[in-house]
Amino acid sequence: MTPRSVKVGLVQSSTTEDKAENLAKALTGVRQAARQGAQIICLQELFAGPYFCREEDAALFDLAEPIPGPITQAVSAVAKELGVSVLTSLFERRAPGVYHNTLVTLGPEGQTVGVYRKMHIPDDPLFYEKFYFTPGDLGFQVHETPLAKLGPLVCWDQWYPEGARLTALRGAEILFYPTAIGVQPYEKDEWGQHQLAAWQTIQRAHAIANGVFVVAVNRVGHEGPADGGIDFWGRSFVVDPFGIVLAEAGQGEEVLVCELDLSRIEQVRRWWPFFRDRRIDAYEGLEQRWLEGGKAP
Amino acid sequence: MTPRSVKVGLVQSSTTEDKAENLAKALTGVRQAARQGAQIICLQELFAGPYFCREEDAALFDLAEPIPGPITQAVSAVAKELGVSVLTSLFERRAPGVYHNTLVTLGPEGQTVGVYRKMHIPDDPLFYEKFYFTPGDLGFQVHETPLAKLGPLVCWDQWYPEGARLTALRGAEILFYPTAIGVQPYEKDEWGQHQLAAWQTIQRAHAIANGVFVVAVNRVGHEGPADGGIDFWGRSFVVDPFGIVLAEAGQGEEVLVCELDLSRIEQVRRWWPFFRDRRIDAYEGLEQRWLEGGKAP
Repeated sequence: MTPRSVKVGLVQSSTTEDKAENLAKALTGVRQAARQGAQIICLQELFAGPYFCREEDAALFDLAEPIPGPITQAVSAVAKELGVSVLTSLFERRAPGVYHNTLVTLGPEGQTVGVYRKMHIPDDPLFYEKFYFTPGDLGFQVHETPLAKLGPLVCWDQWYPEGARLTALRGAEILFYPTAIGVQPYEKDEWGQHQLAAWQTIQRAHAIANGVFVVAVNRVGHEGPADGGIDFWGRSFVVDPFGIVLAEAGQGEEVLVCELDLSRIEQVRRWWPFFRDRRIDAYEGLEQRWLEGGKAP
Repeated sequence: MTPRSVKVGLVQSSTTEDKAENLAKALTGVRQAARQGAQIICLQELFAGPYFCREEDAALFDLAEPIPGPITQAVSAVAKELGVSVLTSLFERRAPGVYHNTLVTLGPEGQTVGVYRKMHIPDDPLFYEKFYFTPGDLGFQVHETPLAKLGPLVCWDQWYPEGARLTALRGAEILFYPTAIGVQPYEKDEWGQHQLAAWQTIQRAHAIANGVFVVAVNRVGHEGPADGGIDFWGRSFVVDPFGIVLAEAGQGEEVLVCELDLSRIEQVRRWWPFFRDRRIDAYEGLEQRWLEGGKAP
């Protein structure tokens, strides 16, 4: 098979309370990635500010903005200038009382390629997302750019094989997971390494199960009080369709650029043809909440 | 939560052409595991002989036997004697022309707890299973034993998140994957480690995604011509609901016994409540073969 090369860029940053500064830093990251040859660039989840879901405060809905709006317009202009695609995560204000955690893919002519709204919404201490984010209503998608078919997903989606599968079934070649994941200080010593390992493992498994590339982009830095809050662990990474880690960032700010040969998708699927053997006649029940006590279909 | 302890045993062996010898060896492994305290014991896939699917030969259907039959009767007697449950893999003769790769769980009173027929059937060079095995028609199941709810799955099933999910949704606490997986000599240097890693990774991911324990039991030894054939890589393992590897065998014959605290399932699911947030309203399409070109539902 003929190699089909594309370079992805991952921008992993810390943030401050200053939205303009965060946006400028993200665009600097996009420029740096493009200088290193990146053609498809992914920013971290909600890069325009600190991870505000650490508390439930109705005033924080002021952080949301419409699409199009300041963030998408600024990124669009840079995408067009550089001729790159940028997966752009933001807090979307859709209507009074309807806000989403949204991923917009802006294409190399500055156009909106697609809009994805985070489907799986978490809620646990310091991650009170169910307060802020209405669950996505646009389903699982593919954003088709000139160089590759992108699978937009966001953070908590990464724990759901269903989301990865549906996105791959729609033809995605690269799954993107902009993310804000970290560990709380009280649990760091006992569980920090295990959480990181679980996070890497399940996303590598999505690559393997679906024969696709996976790109995860996380933030870094400590947010919140010194004796509490969240340590965002960075460690953004790229894996190939066999689950092999091609590139991995550390725990500081970093722009990571990685070349993918998209022909590897078909190579891997020919060896291990998992799609061929799916038992689509026997998957009834996946759309149910719980099946215990029921009979096999 | 009150700890709820159960010990699982994994019997990892090589085989010879002598069925009686393989059965005796398997039962010796069951006895050894039980002596070490195992209460639920899993034998490797098709332990009664060499992995015969390396060629397509109609005469080899003679290896199949009915249920009940010699294998289930022999294992049942030992299960009853020792008061243990044994997941027993065999080539099932159901009718002339209808043969399955079947997993029978025999309970501590020698009773048949449940019968599972391998749902996902592979077919690639030296693994010509589609010739021999009619795809299972009993769906994804739970086999309820006195000490735990077991999720019976077989080998190629391990690459399918759908099978793991449906089995977990039915209440399984431990997924079992008796397996015959190995590497062919020509690819061993370049791909052997990556294949092993992919195999471990995806099964650890099933544990994480579903908050269940996973037990994989593989065979060992070289089968086939010295310059070809398959090196079965062993490395049977047990992982907890967080994806942490609790025990792992080497590449030789081994009986592995591992204590599980089943209360850990609920502990983990309380921290990372993935079942709570599944988008059962948005999983339409998982029962389709391919969705590219279609619209999001």
